[in-house]
Amino acid sequence: MEETFVPFEGIKNDLKARLKCYKQDWTGGFSAGLRILAPTTYIFFASAIPVISFGEQLERNTDGVLTAVQTLASTALCGIIHSIIGGQPLLILGVAEPTVLMYTFMFKFAKDRPELGAKLFLAWSGWVCVWTAVLLFFLAILGACSIINRFTRVAGELFGMLIAMLFMQQAIKGLVDEFRAPLRENLRQTEFLPSWRFANGMFALVLSFGLLLTAIRSRKARSWRYGSGMIRGLIADYGVPLMVLVWTAVSYIPSHSVPHGIPRRLFSPNPWSPGAYDNWTVIKDMLDVPILYIIGAFIPATMIAVLYYFDHSVASQLAQQKEFNLRKPPSFHYDLLLLGFLTLLSGLLGIPPSNGVIPQSPMHTKSLATLKHQLLRSRLVATARRSMGKNASLGQLYGNMQESYQQMQTPLIYQDASARGLNDLKDSTIQLASSMGNIDAPVDETVFDIEKEIDDLLPVEVKEQRLSNLLQSTMVGCCVAAMPLLKMIPTSVLWGYFAFMAIESLPGNQFWERILLLFTAPSRRYKVLEEYHATFVETVPFKTIATFTIFQTAYLLTCFGITWVPLAGVLFPLLIMLLVPVRQYLLPKFFKGAHLQDLDAAEYEEAPALPFNLACQGGETGPFAESGEIMDEIVTRSRGEIRRICSPKVTSSTSTPLKESKSFQSPRYVDKVFSPRVSELRGERSPQLGGRGPLSPRTGEASPSLLGKGASDSTSK
Amino acid sequence: MEETFVPFEGIKNDLKARLKCYKQDWTGGFSAGLRILAPTTYIFFASAIPVISFGEQLERNTDGVLTAVQTLASTALCGIIHSIIGGQPLLILGVAEPTVLMYTFMFKFAKDRPELGAKLFLAWSGWVCVWTAVLLFFLAILGACSIINRFTRVAGELFGMLIAMLFMQQAIKGLVDEFRAPLRENLRQTEFLPSWRFANGMFALVLSFGLLLTAIRSRKARSWRYGSGMIRGLIADYGVPLMVLVWTAVSYIPSHSVPHGIPRRLFSPNPWSPGAYDNWTVIKDMLDVPILYIIGAFIPATMIAVLYYFDHSVASQLAQQKEFNLRKPPSFHYDLLLLGFLTLLSGLLGIPPSNGVIPQSPMHTKSLATLKHQLLRSRLVATARRSMGKNASLGQLYGNMQESYQQMQTPLIYQDASARGLNDLKDSTIQLASSMGNIDAPVDETVFDIEKEIDDLLPVEVKEQRLSNLLQSTMVGCCVAAMPLLKMIPTSVLWGYFAFMAIESLPGNQFWERILLLFTAPSRRYKVLEEYHATFVETVPFKTIATFTIFQTAYLLTCFGITWVPLAGVLFPLLIMLLVPVRQYLLPKFFKGAHLQDLDAAEYEEAPALPFNLACQGGETGPFAESGEIMDEIVTRSRGEIRRICSPKVTSSTSTPLKESKSFQSPRYVDKVFSPRVSELRGERSPQLGGRGPLSPRTGEASPSLLGKGASDSTSK
Repeated sequence: MEETFVPFEGIKNDLKARLKCYKQDWTGGFSAGLRILAPTTYIFFASAIPVISFGEQLERNTDGVLTAVQTLASTALCGIIHSIIGGQPLLILGVAEPTVLMYTFMFKFAKDRPELGAKLFLAWSGWVCVWTAVLLFFLAILGACSIINRFTRVAGELFGMLIAMLFMQQAIKGLVDEFRAPLRENLRQTEFLPSWRFANGMFALVLSFGLLLTAIRSRKARSWRYGSGMIRGLIADYGVPLMVLVWTAVSYIPSHSVPHGIPRRLFSPNPWSPGAYDNWTVIKDMLDVPILYIIGAFIPATMIAVLYYFDHSVASQLAQQKEFNLRKPPSFHYDLLLLGFLTLLSGLLGIPPSNGVIPQSPMHTKSLATLKHQLLRSRLVATARRSMGKNASLGQLYGNMQESYQQMQTPLIYQDASARGLNDLKDSTIQLASSMGNIDAPVDETVFDIEKEIDDLLPVEVKEQRLSNLLQSTMVGCCVAAMPLLKMIPTSVLWGYFAFMAIESLPGNQFWERILLLFTAPSRRYKVLEEYHATFVETVPFKTIATFTIFQTAYLLTCFGITWVPLAGVLFPLLIMLLVPVRQYLLPKFFKGAHLQDLDAAEYEEAPALPFNLACQGGETGPFAESGEIMDEIVTRSRGEIRRICSPKVTSSTSTPLKESKSFQSPRYVDKVFSPRVSELRGERSPQLGGRGPLSPRTGEASPSLLGKGASDSTSK
Repeated sequence: MEETFVPFEGIKNDLKARLKCYKQDWTGGFSAGLRILAPTTYIFFASAIPVISFGEQLERNTDGVLTAVQTLASTALCGIIHSIIGGQPLLILGVAEPTVLMYTFMFKFAKDRPELGAKLFLAWSGWVCVWTAVLLFFLAILGACSIINRFTRVAGELFGMLIAMLFMQQAIKGLVDEFRAPLRENLRQTEFLPSWRFANGMFALVLSFGLLLTAIRSRKARSWRYGSGMIRGLIADYGVPLMVLVWTAVSYIPSHSVPHGIPRRLFSPNPWSPGAYDNWTVIKDMLDVPILYIIGAFIPATMIAVLYYFDHSVASQLAQQKEFNLRKPPSFHYDLLLLGFLTLLSGLLGIPPSNGVIPQSPMHTKSLATLKHQLLRSRLVATARRSMGKNASLGQLYGNMQESYQQMQTPLIYQDASARGLNDLKDSTIQLASSMGNIDAPVDETVFDIEKEIDDLLPVEVKEQRLSNLLQSTMVGCCVAAMPLLKMIPTSVLWGYFAFMAIESLPGNQFWERILLLFTAPSRRYKVLEEYHATFVETVPFKTIATFTIFQTAYLLTCFGITWVPLAGVLFPLLIMLLVPVRQYLLPKFFKGAHLQDLDAAEYEEAPALPFNLACQGGETGPFAESGEIMDEIVTRSRGEIRRICSPKVTSSTSTPLKESKSFQSPRYVDKVFSPRVSELRGERSPQLGGRGPLSPRTGEASPSLLGKGASDSTSK
């Protein structure tokens, strides 16, 4: 994206581009049929459960002014509007942890001022939203999103880690509170006797750790050995909400021997209770706010505007990573403008505003990639079977498959990226054919294992449409009506879920992996090389990695620390935005350009990127892995971040042969090619890892021969 | 061992053979220096913790007549005597779960008879021990242990699974009881209020699951990536007792907010309390037992004799598996005779008798193998370093290493097995030399990575001595004095430990792995082949495996069920002994001989066995694995059972080349050789695994080429 700051230019371009595919956004969604329900439900739960928990958290922090009803309502309302008239329908909107933090700061401030108090808090925060909206309008109109590519990995991952820390903090705080009597309750009730408080705390420990451990296990169900593929798939897709159900059920087991109120459950007024709608009429009170506070509202508004500008754009960016091979255009400017409207609307309705959320947005794209993969796969397998039934040669087989693949393509093709998928398919089939002998001979299943080969050939593609987003937002809205059911969930289960979200967001975050690398024993660092790992492990000296990581950790802890400071905490979004100039101007003074590029590939200073290829994953999941399992691998280790490099050191000089050879390597290939390579690396102990010996010249010479037939074939081609 | 039933013949042979190495048993122990403490402490904890738990269990089941003081005293006394004058010092003695079961049956019987009652229970059980001792004398003298090789894998593993089930049953029962008020307590105490009982139960859940999960994790510490090798080693060796300490400490955290008695802790009188020594004078009461009951004691005595005969021999057998390459002779007959004396002694002292225990005995041998490995390794590495410093050629290097190896050998060599270790060492070095070029050229570290190569070369050897056994028994004895400290351990931590012992004993048990195989989805069975697996997976059709496993499971459940039957339960040892004729006469009628041989290799019908070789493990642990980690792999997955076959199908026809080729395959080799092989198997889906296609003739033809250079070199040699 070019950096253009002409007013309205960005919004106009976004609108023009997205309007072209608007119709297909809907037809594409409906054409997927019932299968669309899998990603929809997946994202619904990932979206609704934290929002409920945030409601619970707000309920405590705002003395019951805001509850889960309001957070759910905001998420549903903003989500529905965005899914219909938003630019990028892959982006998921919701009330996020930073919003909760800001509202908590604001409530604490308002409560202590006699002019405002808890009564006028919502009216005042309405003014904050008004100012925020104004700022967002300006940012959108002036094209602030043009600099989106300066939000590099360093900033995004630091923000992700901060969110993980806030989640974990909430989990721990919630659990500790289970042992204490709540502040606003009648302490003479049976359940607040010391014995029952202790029992409640212990029960909470059991429930939250139970949820955490089983949820983590269930996410890996696809690679279990036991149970049929369908059951494993179901557990992997729906395991986490299922575990919430299971542990809620468990919490009722001892109900005959404990008093009512043990364990503590979600507290929220029903949406039909008297007073629950107070917030909706907040617009009436807004003029009662003293003029000084109306103007003062500008200060938190700038923070929220900065926060939303960053959070919304990064969430959108992560949902549209290059590796997903999206066909439809992004829409950063227009979406920011719409976010301004949504913030205004939320403020006037007295509900906390929603913005684009991490990790749900990349999770959404990923689940749609799985969906598209399944759809493409079943179509191509059927075609291949039919062709083979007619004794087609491999050439004909390819022709037929290509035709089917064409038919499945989004008719409206925005980018030239489309051609790539096809060429890859062709290259791989031809490669396969020549490796097997005659391209014109009829093929049969002993030579061409349909399901396996097709799995290897299929590029990553995403079912881009609006339906899943609309459906999940609507389901979140239905949760408001289902409040009596939601109130059966024990709060301790939610704390477990918070911890789960925090832990799930770590793998794939290179910042986190670098922290782990610091703690890895020097003699074990070779193990990192044996796995799928990022480039920097091989190209950047360990000392540089360490310095960089320690700097980033210090910065993270500063951001986290500032959220604890009573009033200055409101400034934490500034610190995060500050990372952009720090990255661009300060870091290059301390680190070599090549190292920075590997540690934090910034688009504006990057070398040509390598295409991501599914086959790289093959060595790990094996050829019989179900399609979902392969996709799981990509994005479970994720927060949407995909690692781009398979193994051997790839610099710009060697990238060309590898790039081509990788695109057709079947998993079996990868096995042969990479395992000796790894042992080579182990044997040599390259300097940045062990530092015990010089990198033998053999390593460099060996690579062409190690890459073997694949590489030499492709380079001579 | 030949089957000889000449009276006293077996005992005489045993004594003669063991006396020859008696002196070396002690000198060898002392020569290991302080390092002997690692295996000693390891076995001490593995032995003491269950014995304490059994004491707790007996305390409940016998209304406090027998407590942890008595079980510890018996374990210490019998252990010390056996370690000094026993035949096989690798065998660990202790009060075992079946003994506890038998004593529980006996107590229930005695309590209900007015002539005996709880008062004369110990006196009557003294008579049971007298009869048991008489029976054991007969069995020992008549050479009953000659048929030890008919106790095949089927019987041993079924017994192991039964013990695991009993452990797990006790863990669950103990946990459930934490929610209930104990029977014999004053129910008006604070801690038995419903609220505190519930709190106690929940606390117990937290403590026991905490112990279970952290203990399982800590056992795998050696393969952790974090922390230095020494810390990892310490955690792996001492992690479990450490976790008992940690969770005991955790149990004191809320002590200011809970009444005394929450959580419940180990109950046992101090050995110096009045009445604690009542049992020691039981011999005085023995003549008060009515004559009818003295004769009747013969019935439980036969059961205990059968049980001990089986349990003691199987424990001894597992501690002396072929794969450990023991140099010193076994001593089944003499040890059984000694067990008779020990039982008599225990009976007269009013303590429950001890016998050889599973899984501690094989754990002992394994930890001594690790010790020997470390000792040999540091010696050879030092020698190699010295030789290379003098610019020695590979030939000289070998000579020096051989010399050092010789010096480390037990001077008294009983079996010809010793020669093997040496030859292996020579073969591998020569092989290595020729693969690297000139055998006479000076070697340097870039060609010959000392530590790695030596790890690959070293055969499995065990530091056979008496010192570790004597020390651990003495330490168990010291536990009696440390009773006030032991009483700080919460009972719930013990239940967690029981569950841990049950779970730890499963991996390596082929019966268990076959059960898992039954539940493995057909499409995932190939994953079993990718790992280190038993022969039968590749040679026996899946249907046969299933039938065999279902039969064994039914038999196991019958054995387990009978322990629940009030009085007939006493007969459960008979059912286990019955497996011997069932295996020998009944099973061959339903299963093909070749299949039975793979599923349950019985020595009397077995084909020549393959030598076990460390290198087979290499592919998994990697060349940088610390020596302890490799040994861990062998026996953590264990109960002492070592899997014998690495990978490709080995029938008698193909075993010769493989046997030789394997003995020098370095891990790197194994990687290259076996991974394509596995993918071959995957691609082909051999019939017994997937049943989807015929086994292609390619598989057979491919193997020599796949085994590659190694195989052809060694066959042409």
